[in-house]
Amino acid sequence: MNYTGYLRQPHYYETDQMGIIHHSNYIRWFEEARVDWLTFLDVPYYKIEEAGIIIPVLAVTCDYKEMIRYEDQVRIEVTIDHYTGTRLEFSYHIYNQTTENLLTTGTSKHCFLDKETNRLLQLRRSHPEIHRIFSETFERQKETTND
Amino acid sequence: MNYTGYLRQPHYYETDQMGIIHHSNYIRWFEEARVDWLTFLDVPYYKIEEAGIIIPVLAVTCDYKEMIRYEDQVRIEVTIDHYTGTRLEFSYHIYNQTTENLLTTGTSKHCFLDKETNRLLQLRRSHPEIHRIFSETFERQKETTND
Amino acid sequence: MNYTGYLRQPHYYETDQMGIIHHSNYIRWFEEARVDWLTFLDVPYYKIEEAGIIIPVLAVTCDYKEMIRYEDQVRIEVTIDHYTGTRLEFSYHIYNQTTENLLTTGTSKHCFLDKETNRLLQLRRSHPEIHRIFSETFERQKETTND
Amino acid sequence: MNYTGYLRQPHYYETDQMGIIHHSNYIRWFEEARVDWLTFLDVPYYKIEEAGIIIPVLAVTCDYKEMIRYEDQVRIEVTIDHYTGTRLEFSYHIYNQTTENLLTTGTSKHCFLDKETNRLLQLRRSHPEIHRIFSETFERQKETTND
Repeated sequence: MNYTGYLRQPHYYETDQMGIIHHSNYIRWFEEARVDWLTFLDVPYYKIEEAGIIIPVLAVTCDYKEMIRYEDQVRIEVTIDHYTGTRLEFSYHIYNQTTENLLTTGTSKHCFLDKETNRLLQLRRSHPEIHRIFSETFERQKETTND
Repeated sequence: MNYTGYLRQPHYYETDQMGIIHHSNYIRWFEEARVDWLTFLDVPYYKIEEAGIIIPVLAVTCDYKEMIRYEDQVRIEVTIDHYTGTRLEFSYHIYNQTTENLLTTGTSKHCFLDKETNRLLQLRRSHPEIHRIFSETFERQKETTND
Repeated sequence: MNYTGYLRQPHYYETDQMGIIHHSNYIRWFEEARVDWLTFLDVPYYKIEEAGIIIPVLAVTCDYKEMIRYEDQVRIEVTIDHYTGTRLEFSYHIYNQTTENLLTTGTSKHCFLDKETNRLLQLRRSHPEIHRIFSETFERQKETTND
Repeated sequence: MNYTGYLRQPHYYETDQMGIIHHSNYIRWFEEARVDWLTFLDVPYYKIEEAGIIIPVLAVTCDYKEMIRYEDQVRIEVTIDHYTGTRLEFSYHIYNQTTENLLTTGTSKHCFLDKETNRLLQLRRSHPEIHRIFSETFERQKETTND
């Protein structure tokens, strides 16, 4: 079963006086989408933290193609661009759920840290089960993309 | 020397599509103002947490008298309404810094918890120095109000 | 058919370094819940604005009974406490969706303004169809409560 | 007189349960910093909007080098990377104000739109005075960088 994307209705408090969704909120939507995707993979983020891992953000980018308005329902698709056991990279595509127009794209880069020591983790060794989930999902996505 | 209030310029991301500051931000401004006031009293909030205390919010109220716009500079005045060693209550008055119009009023109620155990603290016993600062400020404010 | 409440999963960016959902976000959740309730009543808020009405917030209160954590799923129930055609008042109850514990309560007060002139509207005259929806819902809720 | 940067104390509501400033807030700080810089140049953003211009964000990037904590005071430096009369690009450097460590870098790209029609503006023609300010500042920064 494939992940079909994260549906999101903008909130009024996310609008600004230009009459659009303020650009900073997209960075938050990316986080919501990757958390939703982790839940879909059966590793909800709070369980990752309970297992002693934090996944901080090392970098984000966002390209705004069309303004998003309060009444637009959007769908955010999440793709693993890269996974090495120590690094994880995502890309995001935000679509208007009604028109299917591509509204925004973005990326984020992450590492894995031990929650107590803040040291870099190699998931392959430290948490092989979670490693397997990320790894298999990444491999499956590569195949799909190559088809 | 008296605390003369917390000056704040609204941020663009705090506006909404009504063209005003979204009402939820005032609750955040109250927090900024009481943190600024704590710093003025020489007990910055991060030092309070370092001393093992957290001060959660038990209740807030906010009465919006006039809309605040992006270009308005405001001043937030903070008053201790009540202090008992276990409970702390504030009131807030937001003024337009140019016109001196009263724009918004609010209140917040707090207790003191041990950061590790989440148990209620009696500051008089657990942290007498911080207790003295709150207590003396509260007494001084009562006198000023009664003059 | 009755409105059964607004389900909400907290977002990571809504946590704070106390390890709980920051109290300011509850005011935003109340807005999300009443917007969801309006959509349930078939008057989504963006259509209200399209009809030339804005519904600003005049006052909010919030009583925090239990801390909400990142992993808690909550349900927010919305009740009309008062409706007069010129004023609208809500109360909110936030429950833990798993344990059914009551976590937080709150209220909000609103008026109706003409979007262009910012003048007070009497919905009974200016927008009788929307008036009827609010009025009937309010009456139905009163009956339910009295049963 | 040169712009010496925007000083910012993190707010408690900007922390998350990792005990750091949530990464989405940096995008907001960049906005605060460029608005502060515009005010320094004597073209506060609200006056730009009053002149009928909006400056939406076309793209942002952010590279997180070190975590920022609640107690850290930061300074955000703003540089014009590019200005053409139709496009404006900034880069940002966030420093710890105490240690002078570089904590984060970022960029943003913008265009100019007519507030009423949403059409692209060529500031050179439509608003020559504002054009002159951006243009001269950009030229002056290039010279400084080349020294």
